[in-house]
Amino acid sequence: MKALRFDGHRLSLRSMRRPSPRRGEVLVRVRLAGICSTDIEILRGYMEFRGVPGHEFVGTAQSPAPRRLAGRRVTGEINLPCGSCGLCRAGLGKHCPRRSVLGISVRDGAFAEYLALPAANLHPIPDTVSDEEAVFTELLAAACEIPERVRITRRTRVAVIGDGRLAALAVQVLGLRTDRLVLFGIDPAKMETISSLGYETRPAEEATGCAGAFDVAVDCSGSPGGLPGAVGLVRPRGTVVLKSTFAGEARWNPSTVAVGEITIVGSRCGPFPAALELLERGLVKVMPLLTAIYPLERWETAFRRARGRGSFKVALEIGP
Amino acid sequence: MKALRFDGHRLSLRSMRRPSPRRGEVLVRVRLAGICSTDIEILRGYMEFRGVPGHEFVGTAQSPAPRRLAGRRVTGEINLPCGSCGLCRAGLGKHCPRRSVLGISVRDGAFAEYLALPAANLHPIPDTVSDEEAVFTELLAAACEIPERVRITRRTRVAVIGDGRLAALAVQVLGLRTDRLVLFGIDPAKMETISSLGYETRPAEEATGCAGAFDVAVDCSGSPGGLPGAVGLVRPRGTVVLKSTFAGEARWNPSTVAVGEITIVGSRCGPFPAALELLERGLVKVMPLLTAIYPLERWETAFRRARGRGSFKVALEIGP
Repeated sequence: MKALRFDGHRLSLRSMRRPSPRRGEVLVRVRLAGICSTDIEILRGYMEFRGVPGHEFVGTAQSPAPRRLAGRRVTGEINLPCGSCGLCRAGLGKHCPRRSVLGISVRDGAFAEYLALPAANLHPIPDTVSDEEAVFTELLAAACEIPERVRITRRTRVAVIGDGRLAALAVQVLGLRTDRLVLFGIDPAKMETISSLGYETRPAEEATGCAGAFDVAVDCSGSPGGLPGAVGLVRPRGTVVLKSTFAGEARWNPSTVAVGEITIVGSRCGPFPAALELLERGLVKVMPLLTAIYPLERWETAFRRARGRGSFKVALEIGP
Repeated sequence: MKALRFDGHRLSLRSMRRPSPRRGEVLVRVRLAGICSTDIEILRGYMEFRGVPGHEFVGTAQSPAPRRLAGRRVTGEINLPCGSCGLCRAGLGKHCPRRSVLGISVRDGAFAEYLALPAANLHPIPDTVSDEEAVFTELLAAACEIPERVRITRRTRVAVIGDGRLAALAVQVLGLRTDRLVLFGIDPAKMETISSLGYETRPAEEATGCAGAFDVAVDCSGSPGGLPGAVGLVRPRGTVVLKSTFAGEARWNPSTVAVGEITIVGSRCGPFPAALELLERGLVKVMPLLTAIYPLERWETAFRRARGRGSFKVALEIGP
């Protein structure tokens, strides 16, 4: 099969053997795969991953597969836990220390014609949700995790830091719970798109004038400045949700966290069923966030576009 | 009166006018004042404070004062809130944005023969608690705040990072709730003292071998490496309590907080009544932590001693 492989130095399109599903796993023929900023960070050294990146996908479950999956369009959760350690038994398999992660750690990912995942990880896609919408499921699930970790009511004043794909989904998910919501971004084109969806956006430089003005700030910036920026926005005893992961170091003085008795809540992957339900009910608009789709062969253009200004989600069309 | 004043460059002993208590305030004749690492950070530029530092004290309330205080030995809470803003009305006066803080922000502090504080800030010291014990009240209250913010049960595995005054009090307060407690420090002499109180201590370099081994880690290190170190010690979904404040910057990658879905809880001043009760009931041993007492005139030696290795609490004897 054709696959994009990262050897630690660069990505290249090459021919590889199809993955062989292990017991309980299903082979998936990949239709569409999204490029995520985690993929871009991987190419910069994040997680020291070697192999096929890509973890946002829509594909067709191949037989043999359980009946709920066989022949259907599916997307999938990316963590492959060991299933037997204490964290797995506590239902926290996404934190299993022996886990592999699709396209991020050990397990080859979705920038290939085929991938393999445990049947338990796979979710059928409702018929009314298109491939182009469903490729946002993994990212939308990560946004759905925010209100799982932090109480958001109609009265909660929420700031979202960042103007990327995750930020654009986070405002929509949080906007279902509160109207007191402001997104701080830097890219005028992306902020224009987010504004057009009905959300208040402000340039990041205005954040300094809003010190302490929010109960909750969510860092979706994917950059080292995001966490200190979010901490500066919340009131004493406020909460910062940290979604950003990146290679490299942040420089800041965390004394303000102690003095303001601020809580920082790290948050990662989230619930796929909730995300698929939001897509099915049309409560979150993802199509304005789909910047472009390229065939796998044009992956270099696709990655360049994904990194570029004004770009939300770029996807690779891989198979039928 | 005699007072130690910091002019932004150096500390010097000088003659100053006695503070004039405002309405509702009480003049306190200072007997004993502790040197805290915050004081040492202030001399390095923390909070850009100019004036008389010192915020840990035992003194005698002068008349006029409410009957519960007049002529009695007292210690006092250090935050002077405005009393009328939203945070003050919500009972969070210690976070009032217009507050002054004794010896830390605006308000002259305890390294002087007299200080003034609102009567509401002052707590009479039980007769069975000596001056030397009571000078630990403010710091012990900060330790008592930890279990107010984070649930600690008999089964909770707790790490304390640091071997200073606050760490030595934190292990004692947390040791009342769990036996599964380890302190990681660097100064062998201080760790020996903490061990002799009956607590398990380990050299900080052993922390790397304990990655993810704790449910809760409390950073009392007062240094930039404390927070990343504490994050490394807790399991996925674990909690880090951040007590450290310092001048300067920390360099680290907070991605691990997002990936491990770790919670960081900033924590500052705590409840004085709880601290005084622990001292009165003898549940916390502070005398082994009193390294030396110097008369005010020997403040230079005292500060040198407070900064030195093997030193816990150094206090200044100021008045009768």
